[in-house]
Amino acid sequence: MPVDPKAAIEVTAFAWVPDFAKGQVRDLRVRWALEEAGLAYRQRLLDAMSPRPEAYFQEQPFGQVPAYRDDTVQLFESGAIVLHIGEDCEALLPRDIAGKARATAWLIAALNSMEPRILELAIIDFFHRDAEWARLRRPEVLEKVREKLARLAAWLGDKEYLEGRFTAGDLMMAAVLRALRHTDLVAEQPTLAAYLARCEARPAFQRALAAQLESFAKSPAAAVA
Amino acid sequence: MPVDPKAAIEVTAFAWVPDFAKGQVRDLRVRWALEEAGLAYRQRLLDAMSPRPEAYFQEQPFGQVPAYRDDTVQLFESGAIVLHIGEDCEALLPRDIAGKARATAWLIAALNSMEPRILELAIIDFFHRDAEWARLRRPEVLEKVREKLARLAAWLGDKEYLEGRFTAGDLMMAAVLRALRHTDLVAEQPTLAAYLARCEARPAFQRALAAQLESFAKSPAAAVA
Repeated sequence: MPVDPKAAIEVTAFAWVPDFAKGQVRDLRVRWALEEAGLAYRQRLLDAMSPRPEAYFQEQPFGQVPAYRDDTVQLFESGAIVLHIGEDCEALLPRDIAGKARATAWLIAALNSMEPRILELAIIDFFHRDAEWARLRRPEVLEKVREKLARLAAWLGDKEYLEGRFTAGDLMMAAVLRALRHTDLVAEQPTLAAYLARCEARPAFQRALAAQLESFAKSPAAAVA
Repeated sequence: MPVDPKAAIEVTAFAWVPDFAKGQVRDLRVRWALEEAGLAYRQRLLDAMSPRPEAYFQEQPFGQVPAYRDDTVQLFESGAIVLHIGEDCEALLPRDIAGKARATAWLIAALNSMEPRILELAIIDFFHRDAEWARLRRPEVLEKVREKLARLAAWLGDKEYLEGRFTAGDLMMAAVLRALRHTDLVAEQPTLAAYLARCEARPAFQRALAAQLESFAKSPAAAVA
């Protein structure tokens, strides 16, 4: 769906971010879920480089993006927003209790079992590359990430998606694995590399990524605070 | 509810852990949710000190605890298990769409916005206290945790719970904040200290904690692999 200034759903994102963060900011996950669900959305773009307006903390208590609103609810946390969109979208969350719970388990696994370790590595690589502590710490973090990836690859085996069919769990897992793009860690596991490519080839992902990148391409002056 | 060997719900936990982890292992979150819901469960206790049996990775792809099963589904990830229990328990998840989504947002915020930083600090303090990298890194991690706690306290204000009434979001937030018990960080924010005490005073939490600690009190020889 094209971004539509008149849509009922609003996604808050950043007007501009440094190159390493382009295609990585977490509103991508929400845009992707909305594309899978076929829902149009309007965007509100914040200036990432300025302090967040105090009123924004009422929408996003930690000042992060994305924030989200529709006719029913105002929300924060990309994981919760994707689950909320999934409540009415079988492409994201199966309707049966077991299928829905399993998809949710993978979404949470992406956010709580995979992402903390991956983020630890990304923080070292993008923000502390030359620090002494980072040089000393990185090998062990790398090993922990490798262990998680090996377990994920073992689970996946020859399945197309984590539960056979695509769900919100795959959406979140793929979004989290993308934070390793500056490394060879995913490529070291051909099963995972093929899985990530499969997720990223989905038309809904491609439209979501294009929409995020397009929003950055506009002048930072277009940002509203 | 007492732990009941004949219950339909099974929770997998550890038979024994070192003292610093007692009352912290993540099956506590699931026990607490089951107590709030008034559901009996049986427990299967794994030997934490031995390698996980290979078959267990089919239940928990990363070899962690808890794992969970009921008549409908086999699950992993404490966050997903709590949400699944909440689907049939208004004490955990309000029935209205907006209330349910807001409670879910706080549960995810606990797992993805708060816990990664808190865990980074706990990993330093419990596993790397004497490492050079930890000495260099700790002050900044501490500052990041303090920032998150201050934002959480600001949101909470004079509310009893994050959304006014208790939800699964408070359950998860309290469980995550408990990982700072070895520090004064929560006490530095009187609003948060009172909130955590309020959550921990709930009879369901007290019963869940007692059940976890009681399982550790048994001989390690009682563990089944």
